Amino acid sequence: MIIIIDCEDQKGLIHKITGVLADLDLNIVQNREFVEHERNRFYMRTVVEGEVEKGIVKTALEAVLPANHTLSISTGSLKKMVIMVTKEEHCLTELISKYYFGNLKVNLVAVVGNHEHLKAYTEKFNIPYHFISHEGKSRETHEAELLDCLKQYNPDYIVLAKFMRILSEDFTSHYPSRMINIHHSFLPAFKGANPYRQAYERGVKIIGATAHFVNQDLDEGPIIHQEVIPVDHSLSPMEMAAAGKDVEKLVLAKALQLVLDQKVYVSGNKTIIF
Amino acid sequence: MIIIIDCEDQKGLIHKITGVLADLDLNIVQNREFVEHERNRFYMRTVVEGEVEKGIVKTALEAVLPANHTLSISTGSLKKMVIMVTKEEHCLTELISKYYFGNLKVNLVAVVGNHEHLKAYTEKFNIPYHFISHEGKSRETHEAELLDCLKQYNPDYIVLAKFMRILSEDFTSHYPSRMINIHHSFLPAFKGANPYRQAYERGVKIIGATAHFVNQDLDEGPIIHQEVIPVDHSLSPMEMAAAGKDVEKLVLAKALQLVLDQKVYVSGNKTIIF
Amino acid sequence: MIIIIDCEDQKGLIHKITGVLADLDLNIVQNREFVEHERNRFYMRTVVEGEVEKGIVKTALEAVLPANHTLSISTGSLKKMVIMVTKEEHCLTELISKYYFGNLKVNLVAVVGNHEHLKAYTEKFNIPYHFISHEGKSRETHEAELLDCLKQYNPDYIVLAKFMRILSEDFTSHYPSRMINIHHSFLPAFKGANPYRQAYERGVKIIGATAHFVNQDLDEGPIIHQEVIPVDHSLSPMEMAAAGKDVEKLVLAKALQLVLDQKVYVSGNKTIIF
Amino acid sequence: MIIIIDCEDQKGLIHKITGVLADLDLNIVQNREFVEHERNRFYMRTVVEGEVEKGIVKTALEAVLPANHTLSISTGSLKKMVIMVTKEEHCLTELISKYYFGNLKVNLVAVVGNHEHLKAYTEKFNIPYHFISHEGKSRETHEAELLDCLKQYNPDYIVLAKFMRILSEDFTSHYPSRMINIHHSFLPAFKGANPYRQAYERGVKIIGATAHFVNQDLDEGPIIHQEVIPVDHSLSPMEMAAAGKDVEKLVLAKALQLVLDQKVYVSGNKTIIF
Repeated sequence: MIIIIDCEDQKGLIHKITGVLADLDLNIVQNREFVEHERNRFYMRTVVEGEVEKGIVKTALEAVLPANHTLSISTGSLKKMVIMVTKEEHCLTELISKYYFGNLKVNLVAVVGNHEHLKAYTEKFNIPYHFISHEGKSRETHEAELLDCLKQYNPDYIVLAKFMRILSEDFTSHYPSRMINIHHSFLPAFKGANPYRQAYERGVKIIGATAHFVNQDLDEGPIIHQEVIPVDHSLSPMEMAAAGKDVEKLVLAKALQLVLDQKVYVSGNKTIIF
Repeated sequence: MIIIIDCEDQKGLIHKITGVLADLDLNIVQNREFVEHERNRFYMRTVVEGEVEKGIVKTALEAVLPANHTLSISTGSLKKMVIMVTKEEHCLTELISKYYFGNLKVNLVAVVGNHEHLKAYTEKFNIPYHFISHEGKSRETHEAELLDCLKQYNPDYIVLAKFMRILSEDFTSHYPSRMINIHHSFLPAFKGANPYRQAYERGVKIIGATAHFVNQDLDEGPIIHQEVIPVDHSLSPMEMAAAGKDVEKLVLAKALQLVLDQKVYVSGNKTIIF
Repeated sequence: MIIIIDCEDQKGLIHKITGVLADLDLNIVQNREFVEHERNRFYMRTVVEGEVEKGIVKTALEAVLPANHTLSISTGSLKKMVIMVTKEEHCLTELISKYYFGNLKVNLVAVVGNHEHLKAYTEKFNIPYHFISHEGKSRETHEAELLDCLKQYNPDYIVLAKFMRILSEDFTSHYPSRMINIHHSFLPAFKGANPYRQAYERGVKIIGATAHFVNQDLDEGPIIHQEVIPVDHSLSPMEMAAAGKDVEKLVLAKALQLVLDQKVYVSGNKTIIF
Repeated sequence: MIIIIDCEDQKGLIHKITGVLADLDLNIVQNREFVEHERNRFYMRTVVEGEVEKGIVKTALEAVLPANHTLSISTGSLKKMVIMVTKEEHCLTELISKYYFGNLKVNLVAVVGNHEHLKAYTEKFNIPYHFISHEGKSRETHEAELLDCLKQYNPDYIVLAKFMRILSEDFTSHYPSRMINIHHSFLPAFKGANPYRQAYERGVKIIGATAHFVNQDLDEGPIIHQEVIPVDHSLSPMEMAAAGKDVEKLVLAKALQLVLDQKVYVSGNKTIIF
């Protein structure tokens, strides 16, 4: 059982919370706390073992937590996830390969693409692929079709695995802190289009990738994970893009794993990661 | 006030310990715990704020801890440190530069060298330099002279900053888990002499450095910190050694900082680092 | 056209070689040279553009090169490759995903496994999978069966993608500098079995993976590529193994790419990589 | 003797250049070329051994190079360097420590600071320290005083080792591609003031440092070297700044070493590094 707490900081909180757990005869096997002093918030993630119903734990903890808290208790049932793609395959193959061999603890219910390129690959694994083209449609119409498709699956998480269409705030507001995007640069450097071209023009010696939650502003949501690789003058923008693919897929997979393990808290426009 | 606890794991420990702190009206500002399941040991590091005497906290905590515990409470007084060197300067200059400008919270009481090369540099900073040559002496005699010199300073920590003599178990037993050495390889690869030559011969693509506590067996003590850098076929052993110097000095300085911050526990032949 | 030269070093070699290329009206678009001073060997890799037959270039170059040289000229035809596996999937999925989408310029003719675990996955991509069990057979018999299977494909390269059987010198001698293995440690640290367990026991702060050519001695062949990731005390050996999988697959794929791009020279027990 | 060539690309250039060297009986011990296809420029760096006067080599090479070339031949005499600082010490101590022990092949003729903080340290090493305060002066007046001071030393290179004043284009135009600055972020992310505060606010998971030549636009000159380190939510802006210091000093020292080794070409607003 994983217990996730996010509340105003108070003296004695850890003592109170661990007291509840001790009274219920729950054994703490992992525990992390963090106090964000600037916002006076207390964050705690506790893994416990024991035979107590989730509802009982919840009620007992709520009795000791400050009024304005977030409490989530999970018992390991799989979350539902939809992946959205365009043409590039590397993030999708990374996630499906891990999923197919049981290394991504999630229920991958569908892939949605605005091109057909990745349909055949996806269907090899008996995962439904929905081809919803944007061609000849207004953004509103296209997004409405995407939303209709997503809603039938009622996903917990949506992963933008190189989905190359800009999504409106209206769209993204349906899944706050539940849409994860991979951006192919080390944000905030090279926001927007063609980051590898931008990196080439600027002559940087390192490139990277950033996985982040999607919010209203493009490329501005809370960052979950970032990694980089060295480059040099000899790489063309296309070679940089090729070199960046492995970083992108690993950064996205790592970020998703952290989210699925419930190790990521959103605090304002930042994340706290245990 | 930093409280360091190392004891047998028991259900309810965090609750008991935080209860003591709450009763004393101490506010927890940082907290980390870890349970080593293989050895059933509980480790905790807590930073608290409040106006209570150290002795009172100690007595109160001892009343709730299991019999076989280690408890240390520190209130920020500076530890005493001696650095031992041979001819190479890079680790010494790193530590003295940080120390001189107040970025290494320690009392650097002396430098001891078996050569004179680093005397002039050290004395620029008004730090005593003891030149104790090993030439024409048995190892026993030399070590006895070194020990005599060290004892007058009663150091909490001894840092072997590229001290290139092998020390006997008799010597090192005087400072268990209090001597920190920098080895110029990514241990356990390339133990012993000339690791850069060994790395060159083996054709590795990465080299590194390892900071560790010194115990009876050469290069076998608990590892505190390691870092690596890429190399390629074009580097000679001497060029590898030159490239490795920056890694060595940073790894040693980082390890020492962790030790001084009381973030390093020794557990068997491993370290737990908070 | 890629020209690969490996010969005794001599004054004026670059001038002679580039003279031949200029006379044939070939334009150099990329060029790297390296002189290994310890062995007095000259290595050169040149990419040229122009309309000249390979045989003519070869004859013209041989006329100016020292007697004891290696010269290879490639014009981009795909090499044949067989992958050998046991149960673990991550290296195989990495290679097949890249291959399927055209990002590994090779002809992947078959996968051979001593277990059946990866058969269904491989066959989704219409790649032949040969299940050749070692159960109840002597090593000689098993290796004879493997060799028989390999021979029908006449592969240029064999990739051991987590093939967990030790191969005899008799076997490996059939493919000198043409078998590529991934070892799940930062060699030469933790040779042999269970490297993650070994790493855990030693308490290292970094783990890695090594791709190398296979020669007679286990884990001792020329290293092609290595990468590492940080770990800490909180990871069990199993968690280290899981964390290491992504490094393993990328290191193997990167090494293979270098080999396919003809950027890897074997020099004694080391590699030179352009 | 190091020969540096930068010219329009032409077929047969390497052959012509190496022909000149062979005729003069010069032995090539290291050689690198690069063709920047977008700008059709050829870059070559060659290290040769032999007993020929620099002027003779220069004349012979100029006879075969295209009209619009840059040719520089160096024979190892030390370059003159001035370091400019404000209050922070870490870059200065890094450079002086390396210089004092002979690991920075340069003639460090003076340090200039707009504060007095680093005077005592600098003078320990018998290096002149010029304190030129900006207090109560217009930028023009202050820069005029700085320039007067620099001119007496006629430096080849000026290193801005955390010099925290913005310099006018008029000032920097005196030393084109000869002033090296360290910026405490991974450019182009977090240009301008307080990059660690910016990094904290944006919640990035990696921070870095950038060494670059200074040109007219602040933080926009050709990048020489960059490195990064991971950070997390637990670090305050001040802790990030402290963690960043080691990266900054190493990045600056590495970039300077590359420049002194004549391995850095400026090509438009980018660098080519051999």
